[in-house]
Amino acid sequence: MKLRFGRKVISVDEARTALYEYVKPTETETVSLPASFGRMLAKDIYADHAVPHFRRSGVDGYAVRSQDIAAANPDNPIVLHVIERIPSGTIPKCTVQAGMAARIMTGAPVPDGADTVVMLEMTDSLQDEVLSSFGAKVKIKKNVQAASNITPIAGEVSLGELVIPQGTRIGPGEAAILATFGFSMVEVYRRPRVAIFSTGSELLQVEQEMQPGKIRNSNSYMLAAQVEANGGAALIMPALSDDPGQVEAAVEAVLPEVDLILTSGGVSVGDYDVLVDVFGRFDGELLFNKVAMRPGTPTSAALWKNKLLIALSGNPGASFVGFELLAKPIIKAMLGCLCPETEVLTAFLDVPYDKPSVYPRYIRGTTRVDAGCLWVRPAGIDKSSIMVSIKDADCLIWLPAGGQGYQRGDGVKVYTTR
Amino acid sequence: MKLRFGRKVISVDEARTALYEYVKPTETETVSLPASFGRMLAKDIYADHAVPHFRRSGVDGYAVRSQDIAAANPDNPIVLHVIERIPSGTIPKCTVQAGMAARIMTGAPVPDGADTVVMLEMTDSLQDEVLSSFGAKVKIKKNVQAASNITPIAGEVSLGELVIPQGTRIGPGEAAILATFGFSMVEVYRRPRVAIFSTGSELLQVEQEMQPGKIRNSNSYMLAAQVEANGGAALIMPALSDDPGQVEAAVEAVLPEVDLILTSGGVSVGDYDVLVDVFGRFDGELLFNKVAMRPGTPTSAALWKNKLLIALSGNPGASFVGFELLAKPIIKAMLGCLCPETEVLTAFLDVPYDKPSVYPRYIRGTTRVDAGCLWVRPAGIDKSSIMVSIKDADCLIWLPAGGQGYQRGDGVKVYTTR
Repeated sequence: MKLRFGRKVISVDEARTALYEYVKPTETETVSLPASFGRMLAKDIYADHAVPHFRRSGVDGYAVRSQDIAAANPDNPIVLHVIERIPSGTIPKCTVQAGMAARIMTGAPVPDGADTVVMLEMTDSLQDEVLSSFGAKVKIKKNVQAASNITPIAGEVSLGELVIPQGTRIGPGEAAILATFGFSMVEVYRRPRVAIFSTGSELLQVEQEMQPGKIRNSNSYMLAAQVEANGGAALIMPALSDDPGQVEAAVEAVLPEVDLILTSGGVSVGDYDVLVDVFGRFDGELLFNKVAMRPGTPTSAALWKNKLLIALSGNPGASFVGFELLAKPIIKAMLGCLCPETEVLTAFLDVPYDKPSVYPRYIRGTTRVDAGCLWVRPAGIDKSSIMVSIKDADCLIWLPAGGQGYQRGDGVKVYTTR
Repeated sequence: MKLRFGRKVISVDEARTALYEYVKPTETETVSLPASFGRMLAKDIYADHAVPHFRRSGVDGYAVRSQDIAAANPDNPIVLHVIERIPSGTIPKCTVQAGMAARIMTGAPVPDGADTVVMLEMTDSLQDEVLSSFGAKVKIKKNVQAASNITPIAGEVSLGELVIPQGTRIGPGEAAILATFGFSMVEVYRRPRVAIFSTGSELLQVEQEMQPGKIRNSNSYMLAAQVEANGGAALIMPALSDDPGQVEAAVEAVLPEVDLILTSGGVSVGDYDVLVDVFGRFDGELLFNKVAMRPGTPTSAALWKNKLLIALSGNPGASFVGFELLAKPIIKAMLGCLCPETEVLTAFLDVPYDKPSVYPRYIRGTTRVDAGCLWVRPAGIDKSSIMVSIKDADCLIWLPAGGQGYQRGDGVKVYTTR
């Protein structure tokens, strides 16, 4: 029974540090580029060619020598001989010399000799340039500075440059870069497999009819959605009984299959808090069983046959918060993420808040931006037992331990949860 | 050729309105609750029972009558007879009367007669309460107000209440609610299938070796990642040739299979802009071919055999922006989303910006929050031809048409893209 009371409290940072010690990234796997969207890149991507690898025209128009058109204006256009037509995807054949221009398309290589490109809209063709454009001329109606509308070689990316570091989530911009450098297959970290158990004899399965005094298990699905939103693969396990031996057997059975185990419930001071009993008899190592946070103070963690088990509080709000603060960074670290912890922002409190707390408080919050300022307020009723307002939260509001009240407009720290 | 020049320009809002006219939500499909994560709910979810459906204890402790413990304090604890023990998931058998208490667990129903619950930590058990607790007593060491630690019936959700409206994306909070109301299967909108074509004879496939003057097709992958991030299913099609007849055939072949077609490139004033030629001869209806936006002014759209085709500009930046402004809301509307357009926020410009524009400008931007203020700056080099900085953008900065410069600290509108 000594584990129920008199526990040693540690900070959230200390708890995370204790967990990180046992995290290693999952092995990698190679998937097709479209299948890599949303996954975490498992190796550094270096540029094996410059981008662009030729002087690239940014517009449709005429490649010219800027010195030839320095005096051009609508009333006194400069007339140049059109020596060539350069569709994108082709290579210029001629060099642009004094008095010459080359018709060029967006994305095409600028020919030697030319140092600027004049947009088509600032020109007039003097005769329809048919395929053989020999003899065609163009009027340039505007002076355009040297280097205009040309991206120089390596203007975007230099040869050898690190373009995407490993541990980056692959979004649209990363997808474009991977395609550019020829990665039709991409090495990503395997999704960590996370087994999710709920405890509590009040729990019905989702399929079951309602019964007096009972509720359906919602934590497992909430946690599974959190796991998947953060790149993990969730395994929703059958509900655990109140029998420590059965719980031990159920956890040990799934251990070899998974990278992480999450439980909700059974960690508190109640007579039926089965995880506490399990921790009192199992052959693993208890890492902590009390964290300086509200909700979720009795959140516990263990190392069990070399796998981490994070035992979250059973209240829906505490379970949600515990996941965000302790499980999410672990999953992200397993995915090779270089900054697994959620960035802390400062926001203005939108309503007064005066509930004192002996531990730092993490309140599910809703942000809004108004006139460039970030405001935050608690999302609905903020009690750890309340499930329905979780959907309205997009952040956690952090308030330090202590009893002093907060006024509207006070600066507070927030952690986004989306 | 009249479609190349002299086009009628319409605003981004008008363009969206023109597209919305032809959008209908996709049909619905029923998937398991875990498979519904991230999908869009296709029907309103009403509460078929109150939450909680019994007076629920929020703590482990003793259910008592507040009037009995009004005088309790650590020096003068009140002693009550423990009449029952109520684990969660069970139903109380007795009524709490004067001088009585019931041992109660978190989540258990509060027995009749009791109007408050005292936390275990504020009590002392006078004898170990074994299974038959007849004769057990408890010392209550603190006065606790009526209604404390009890969530009343319907305290979270009332019977019949709309808990999640259709068109909502299913995140962790929604998953918890769906589980609570017994939705092991969930009706969601089918993912819109979006065919993605790129045009341009400069394009190599991702698998191909680099060649002089050519680049690998990156837009298709960027757009596919954008489509999938917004709930669509992307079909990356083979690159289109410069031949209008072949383009027409390729588009018509895939039309029956998809809900939306996106093309990139071929809409500008160049001699090889094949989509312009297609729009000049196809049997569909051209909805617009010029939008007051930079980049992406030549963005076009057509209705073709009752399917929408959005022809984005081929420059990577223009393609990205065009997707965000015009394709994303269409995909979200197809998914039943009630507010398909990205929310507009106001932020402070982090750097001066003085490039004039005849059309409103949408600059790929990067936000940061500092001391409660949202700041934004252009993400890397902001030219529509630049691909590498797309990955650094988390928003679009909107600047109105005109030439006046912007100073650091000026308020600007931004649309988040993540």
